[in-house]
Amino acid sequence: MYKILRVNMATKNCVFEDVPPDYAGLGGRGLTSTIVAKEVPATSTPLGPHNKLVIAPGLLGGTNCANSNRVSVGCKSPMTGGIKEANSGGQPGGHLAKLGIHAVIIEDMAPEGEWYQLELGKDSAKLVPSLVTGLNNYDAVAKLVEKYGKECSYVSIGRAGEFKLAAASIAFTDRELRPARHAGRGGVGAVMGSKGLKAVIINPAEGKNLPLDNPEAFNAAAKRFAKALTEHPVCGQGLPNYGTAVLVNILHEAGGLPTRNFSTGRFEGHESVSGEMLNQITKERGGDGVVAHGCMSGCIMRCSGIYPDKNGKFMGKWPEYETLWAFGPNSGIDDLDMIARYDYMCDDVGVDTIDVGAAIALFMEAGVLKFGDAEGALKLLGEISQGSPIGRILGCGVAITGKVYGLRRVPEVKGQGLPAYDPRAVKGQGVTYATTPMGADHTAGYAVTANILSVGGTVDPLSSSGQVELSRNLQIATAAVDTTGLCLFVAFAVLDNPDALVAIVDMLNARYGLSLGLDDVTALGKTVLETELDFNRRAGISSPSDRLPDFFKDEKFPPHNTTFDITDAELDSVLKW
Amino acid sequence: MYKILRVNMATKNCVFEDVPPDYAGLGGRGLTSTIVAKEVPATSTPLGPHNKLVIAPGLLGGTNCANSNRVSVGCKSPMTGGIKEANSGGQPGGHLAKLGIHAVIIEDMAPEGEWYQLELGKDSAKLVPSLVTGLNNYDAVAKLVEKYGKECSYVSIGRAGEFKLAAASIAFTDRELRPARHAGRGGVGAVMGSKGLKAVIINPAEGKNLPLDNPEAFNAAAKRFAKALTEHPVCGQGLPNYGTAVLVNILHEAGGLPTRNFSTGRFEGHESVSGEMLNQITKERGGDGVVAHGCMSGCIMRCSGIYPDKNGKFMGKWPEYETLWAFGPNSGIDDLDMIARYDYMCDDVGVDTIDVGAAIALFMEAGVLKFGDAEGALKLLGEISQGSPIGRILGCGVAITGKVYGLRRVPEVKGQGLPAYDPRAVKGQGVTYATTPMGADHTAGYAVTANILSVGGTVDPLSSSGQVELSRNLQIATAAVDTTGLCLFVAFAVLDNPDALVAIVDMLNARYGLSLGLDDVTALGKTVLETELDFNRRAGISSPSDRLPDFFKDEKFPPHNTTFDITDAELDSVLKW
Repeated sequence: MYKILRVNMATKNCVFEDVPPDYAGLGGRGLTSTIVAKEVPATSTPLGPHNKLVIAPGLLGGTNCANSNRVSVGCKSPMTGGIKEANSGGQPGGHLAKLGIHAVIIEDMAPEGEWYQLELGKDSAKLVPSLVTGLNNYDAVAKLVEKYGKECSYVSIGRAGEFKLAAASIAFTDRELRPARHAGRGGVGAVMGSKGLKAVIINPAEGKNLPLDNPEAFNAAAKRFAKALTEHPVCGQGLPNYGTAVLVNILHEAGGLPTRNFSTGRFEGHESVSGEMLNQITKERGGDGVVAHGCMSGCIMRCSGIYPDKNGKFMGKWPEYETLWAFGPNSGIDDLDMIARYDYMCDDVGVDTIDVGAAIALFMEAGVLKFGDAEGALKLLGEISQGSPIGRILGCGVAITGKVYGLRRVPEVKGQGLPAYDPRAVKGQGVTYATTPMGADHTAGYAVTANILSVGGTVDPLSSSGQVELSRNLQIATAAVDTTGLCLFVAFAVLDNPDALVAIVDMLNARYGLSLGLDDVTALGKTVLETELDFNRRAGISSPSDRLPDFFKDEKFPPHNTTFDITDAELDSVLKW
Repeated sequence: MYKILRVNMATKNCVFEDVPPDYAGLGGRGLTSTIVAKEVPATSTPLGPHNKLVIAPGLLGGTNCANSNRVSVGCKSPMTGGIKEANSGGQPGGHLAKLGIHAVIIEDMAPEGEWYQLELGKDSAKLVPSLVTGLNNYDAVAKLVEKYGKECSYVSIGRAGEFKLAAASIAFTDRELRPARHAGRGGVGAVMGSKGLKAVIINPAEGKNLPLDNPEAFNAAAKRFAKALTEHPVCGQGLPNYGTAVLVNILHEAGGLPTRNFSTGRFEGHESVSGEMLNQITKERGGDGVVAHGCMSGCIMRCSGIYPDKNGKFMGKWPEYETLWAFGPNSGIDDLDMIARYDYMCDDVGVDTIDVGAAIALFMEAGVLKFGDAEGALKLLGEISQGSPIGRILGCGVAITGKVYGLRRVPEVKGQGLPAYDPRAVKGQGVTYATTPMGADHTAGYAVTANILSVGGTVDPLSSSGQVELSRNLQIATAAVDTTGLCLFVAFAVLDNPDALVAIVDMLNARYGLSLGLDDVTALGKTVLETELDFNRRAGISSPSDRLPDFFKDEKFPPHNTTFDITDAELDSVLKW
């Protein structure tokens, strides 16, 4: 029933295959990582013909389970040199699942300078010359919609992906056909660009939810699950009303909001770039603005509000917390309208807002701009689409910008930029940044839960004790959640309400006719991590890479004046069990 | 008698210390690598306070042994992330040795934006604010000579080092006070820049050759050694007459001269950029031109001719073979005068000609310039000193340029650019590039000897057999030679004339009152390599890093249409014994 679609960019062959046993029972991150680990030579050139780009919905994709239509993208990362999974909301995940596509595997590469788009429909796949080469995501999608219509969903890269920049993202359209959801991290867009694939058009016509083994049990579990989400204060109240930006004021209060390139943990302008302000401005301006907007069908948390300009016109999606942080506190900028513009520009040219935003702060650290120079940042961001030298540097993110400007305080692990939680004041996050096979990543083991939000228990964020176990357990759980296609934000409910996890297992069993227990979920998470770690080892990434840069260990971080003091031996114990 | 000088850039303390037992009996690369491995935390930030810059003459430095005054520079490399030793000719090596300085260890860093110069004399060392900040090497040295005089020698960085660019070099003055000899590779100049150290002034007054344990035996051995050099056709004829550029026509003939970014092995314009042409033009133009010029006192091979312009005025040193290759065949440029200008510019701004020259070819591969665009290359090179974004990219070398321009055919290993011998047509070199702890480096195990020159035996350069053993033995021997302070070019004589090596051992014994045998030299080489490999392992560089980029394995290389086919298992066996 489910098929794997192999698309060879050199021969243009598109072949549907049965799912081989090695890939059965997997979805999302579990599937992309397994395919990459098995099929991509670990030492191969990330932008070369031996790398593969894998796009896969999760195990619960294409069902009426809430928030289950995330889509995973996997490859060897041109940014970290290791395995990469980046996932996204938007419509394509659900559409792929409904078409019965377990995974799309993009192989080899088109001749340099040739660009294609992939037309996908029920049992059909075809590569045709791209109509939208040279366009950024918004224009590209608008033009594709003209041809293919509003019922399709779209996957695309902007100019950054065409330039194969190391922070290039892949855009996925939301319900209103905006390319505003992104598989952002690790340069997955550069890999898509290296293949010569500009866009994927997914026509869901004749697609449908696949049969459930036990519909009654599934629906009952889905209801329990939805209830758990709705009733949780973060999932049911915080996220819809304030988006992920709800975290700005919280992290400021906690003294863990990295400000001016990780120099201090509180930003005097935090209120101006907070979720509360997003909510207030969106309501005041009205027009196209939306509070509580879902990025994909079946979303009931609806964190992705729509931000209107002063005239009420659509200006962009609500910037995520990490985006607000990168361009806001970390760059010393407190202008919400400007940050919304940056966010739109990043979505349009197709780059990761974390790595590019944090790179803006490095340009400030280098003295190219001053901290707080919002106009300068705007101009600099505009350079990415031009492909100018400075734009390319910026579009490669934190590590490359740090290298080119000879900087010492470069917040990165394995070449990927650190997100919005200082590892000295939210130490569980520091452990995750250092040890996840993905390079510095907040979602891979989101210790903000117990460190800051008292969700799933409480672990003092400033103490070195308890962080290893916290990060380990979260990394295992996350690898499993990312395999289901569930939005990671369900974790808030799952961590606080034991029945939410049971409901997920019940849905998996009812869908596939399995009899998994809770332990199987943990085992799945461990297996996914082991697969990823093994690839990284074969790629030459060994445990000394699981370290934070010196300055987090050397410099005391105000206001708590703590350093990152988890020992190397402790870090080396995180992903061992 | 010998002392270690520790210079702390934060406290400005300069302290002479007795040589601790761990460092006794070592010099040059053996000493710098041992100090770095022992004192620098392997995972530390290369441009941070925990890295150290070590400058050390060799075991035979400051004697009347021919060609023994090379100087080694060691640190953790900002380019490779691993251990680095780069060595140079020029006068400072001999001066340091005569002052009884076993090694200078530069520690910690000055406050950002402060620049110092180190005044060194007999038993004295002092950091003073630099007079030459912001100047490139030629102007800086000229100004320093005004103050400190012509008897001193000078070590300096240009703007590239101030910018902490990953391909920044450290300049050492030759006998005529030209900053034309460089510790070029791996970004040692960026580490010097990160410390806030702009220059070192070495006043050799009151310095002298240190006492020899057995002067008679030493002098006898030194004579035998000098004779072996003089009588060898490469050392005694090829190098003085044609410089290292003698190799251009040879590699062209062999089909191993990488042309237009490693696309083919022969360059139609090879004659124009050959050693024969250097010799001819230098003689024709006369004036300041010199054929057979030694870069340091005691040199009898004199490969570093002086290139005159059309009016006979000094234009630069004779470009080395690798410099001619990088800007010539590999960039499609056949204009010798232009390449001499590039070489001078690189010496002046202070960058490695290999990594920067090969990066020029990448700008051509990316379409920023056309192959063969000599004027475009000149303009681009000029950008380094400006610190413009494109200049900084270029000044970071091959790996960063490849990343920023999203290229696939990027000739680098461990972040360092491949030199002038294609690994598909000179396979022993390929083995060395892949496996040396230094990142792609030709000197670390110069298999061109047996592969191309029939020196030290003959190993078919196109066959995969015999290359592992060849590279292994050369890497061991080179680690030992680099420890003595001998110019690596003595290897030609050593490989062909057994007495040359015996003479070296005799000199070591006669100088230090030892009774080393030939096996001890091999053991020393192995120990040095083990020290370096251990540092790299602790820095996170594991065996999958010992690989060439895919395109050397995928693309057949004309004219022999060979690929690099040494297996991974063979590569992993190279540095095991």
